[in-house]
Amino acid sequence: MPLLVMKFGGTSVADLGRIANAAEKVRREVERGYDVIVIVSAMSGKTNELVGWVETTSPLYDAREYDAVVASGENVTAGLMALRLQEMDIPARSWQGWQVPINTTSAHSAARFVSIPRGNIDAKFAEGFKVAVVAGFQGVSEEGRITTLGRGGSDTTAVAFAAAFGAERCDIYTDVDGIYTTDPRISGKARKLDRIAFEEMLELASLGAKVLQTRSVELAMRYNVRLRVLSSFEDTDNNSGTLVCAEEDIVESKVVSGVAYSRDEAKITLFTIEDRPGVASSIFGALSEAGVNVDMIVQNISEKNYDAAHPGAVTDMTFSCPVNQVARAQKALEDAQAAGAIAYDELIIDTDVCKVSVVGIGMRSHTGVAARMFKALSAENVNIKVIATSEIKISVLIDRKYMELAVQALHDTFGLESAS
Amino acid sequence: MPLLVMKFGGTSVADLGRIANAAEKVRREVERGYDVIVIVSAMSGKTNELVGWVETTSPLYDAREYDAVVASGENVTAGLMALRLQEMDIPARSWQGWQVPINTTSAHSAARFVSIPRGNIDAKFAEGFKVAVVAGFQGVSEEGRITTLGRGGSDTTAVAFAAAFGAERCDIYTDVDGIYTTDPRISGKARKLDRIAFEEMLELASLGAKVLQTRSVELAMRYNVRLRVLSSFEDTDNNSGTLVCAEEDIVESKVVSGVAYSRDEAKITLFTIEDRPGVASSIFGALSEAGVNVDMIVQNISEKNYDAAHPGAVTDMTFSCPVNQVARAQKALEDAQAAGAIAYDELIIDTDVCKVSVVGIGMRSHTGVAARMFKALSAENVNIKVIATSEIKISVLIDRKYMELAVQALHDTFGLESAS
Repeated sequence: MPLLVMKFGGTSVADLGRIANAAEKVRREVERGYDVIVIVSAMSGKTNELVGWVETTSPLYDAREYDAVVASGENVTAGLMALRLQEMDIPARSWQGWQVPINTTSAHSAARFVSIPRGNIDAKFAEGFKVAVVAGFQGVSEEGRITTLGRGGSDTTAVAFAAAFGAERCDIYTDVDGIYTTDPRISGKARKLDRIAFEEMLELASLGAKVLQTRSVELAMRYNVRLRVLSSFEDTDNNSGTLVCAEEDIVESKVVSGVAYSRDEAKITLFTIEDRPGVASSIFGALSEAGVNVDMIVQNISEKNYDAAHPGAVTDMTFSCPVNQVARAQKALEDAQAAGAIAYDELIIDTDVCKVSVVGIGMRSHTGVAARMFKALSAENVNIKVIATSEIKISVLIDRKYMELAVQALHDTFGLESAS
Repeated sequence: MPLLVMKFGGTSVADLGRIANAAEKVRREVERGYDVIVIVSAMSGKTNELVGWVETTSPLYDAREYDAVVASGENVTAGLMALRLQEMDIPARSWQGWQVPINTTSAHSAARFVSIPRGNIDAKFAEGFKVAVVAGFQGVSEEGRITTLGRGGSDTTAVAFAAAFGAERCDIYTDVDGIYTTDPRISGKARKLDRIAFEEMLELASLGAKVLQTRSVELAMRYNVRLRVLSSFEDTDNNSGTLVCAEEDIVESKVVSGVAYSRDEAKITLFTIEDRPGVASSIFGALSEAGVNVDMIVQNISEKNYDAAHPGAVTDMTFSCPVNQVARAQKALEDAQAAGAIAYDELIIDTDVCKVSVVGIGMRSHTGVAARMFKALSAENVNIKVIATSEIKISVLIDRKYMELAVQALHDTFGLESAS
């Protein structure tokens, strides 16, 4: 029997009506001949309520108890979904993490899968059950304690089940109808993609596209699980949504697949630091210890700052980080300076920047993408402050006021409006 | 290390503030040198919310899914209580039914305990944990499904743990401060009892005293678990509340311990039925099948109804049942008459009656209690309609309008106002 994994997020199971709506989508697949594993999140709002209770009760909570409390939200949805399916004469039962069992590490609130033995659920399918409703986001440790996978963990649960059970596909039902070439709120020309490669989705996810968790995409790529993102709130058919799949399954051949952005970035520059081994390590070690998520890093010789007081070779160091981490970064650097671990003349902070990126597996085989990007920005008089590239992505830091303009210009330049 | 079981009901853990208050009561016992097993209910209102969702989703629900959903309420409280205790530097952890494990039958929503192995929790006490917080009301079946014990099941969980772990006492914290000689709302002279025998508590519980579940009292009696009922909302000490214990631990020697009542009773009389073997069986078989909870039953020869049309021996049959089951009872009897299963001339229904009972283990060794009771009622001109007795209880059915008067008169007659 072919098997499908279907995952419904919190807004898709927010109340009994939406659970019934999701159950209809499951029914359609059962009627088409699939055995189905349904992964459910907690009803939206429930997890936040539980987290709030835990944090109020114990600000520095024991993560094991946090997990035991917070995982209960998914258990409720799983039971209600199973009941709804039974009510539709579809043989179904709910599974909590420990019942499957979903074996994970003991890293509470950030657990990783160890194994998902198929035996128990396969036995139920063999008995004639058509649907296994599994509580997402949770598992059980070797010590028999309930674990959770961290926020967005239900996507990861879905992909892990698809891999473990050799599912034909893993459908992620959510509140958007697919992955777009860019944010439709910024460009009216944004177009839904039929397909996108795992690598591209990974870059987009890490750039802030909130549709899929980075980890779930990584896992799908590693096990070659075909992921489909589609809407819970629209009529969907076999061609709905966006398929996230291996590069060889992509027929479209655009050089760039999408334009992403991250609004709230900051740029920090350390002027006149020693240019010697170990300097970068001292700087970014201090930032890392302070919990600053450094993104782009650029180092360049600052000849113009050279003076006799600094006879050795000197350089500047620039990096970006989320704007809400600037205070923390500044304190970490000043403390390191005071402690003598690093030395710099000046710290310049620019909190009015954003990041715009173009992503596409086509870049691997096409040259000149960066040049086209820079030319397009130049034509709009947008000054580029920092550039960072990967094999399939080019990101630039620019003034925040140009963000929408830059996204629209790049969307036009790379012809993303049309599919061909 | 001496061990105590402490149980907190839904109103005692209704919000984070009350959970903190309950945790203070646990701390006091830990400081006095006890290892403590805390049994918690769901935060009040939560179970009803979950039940509502289940019943709306599937009116004829699968009890296994019902249990999986509804048990989650206790899991939340258990985790929050453990966190609160940790925050007070008391080593504690939460336990869900399957983690202990609390092994039960597979009778979902009405499961019975099979075994509660001590190993896992004892190992944690040996490691230095002072408190095990156990989710009440739930267990796990042999098939690995979550079970629940039915309403009030947390009391039963508490008593079962006290028995399994040889607890010194099982303290039931609730919203009243003990067991009273009668309902204080009816008699201002009602007095809190320091002690009451299991048998008396059982009679009172089955008569509608809502403080303890009948099953939990039965279990406590069987395993001789000393149960104490006391308030979550008052300062309590070692002498607070009411101790429910074995008869030999009772020092007070009143003949009657309490006066109970049940307001909404109905009396149904079948006139002129055949007086032959099998008649009672036909009548009460039909009522039982219809789900009518018959309480008192009286049969007496009704000579005055004898007439020539019924040449055989005839009798009347009177019984009582809750007033909201009268329609169901009437239909069952009329259907049985129509089907020829029973025959009666007339069905008389009186929905304006109530039941008043006196309960006391002293009745076993004292004669004349019934006579004193009837005399007291007669002195107030209260007519007795039906009488039923057990070894330690006498119940009468009277007109509802006399209920408060009868309770007060009996409370006075048996001198319940004073302890000696």
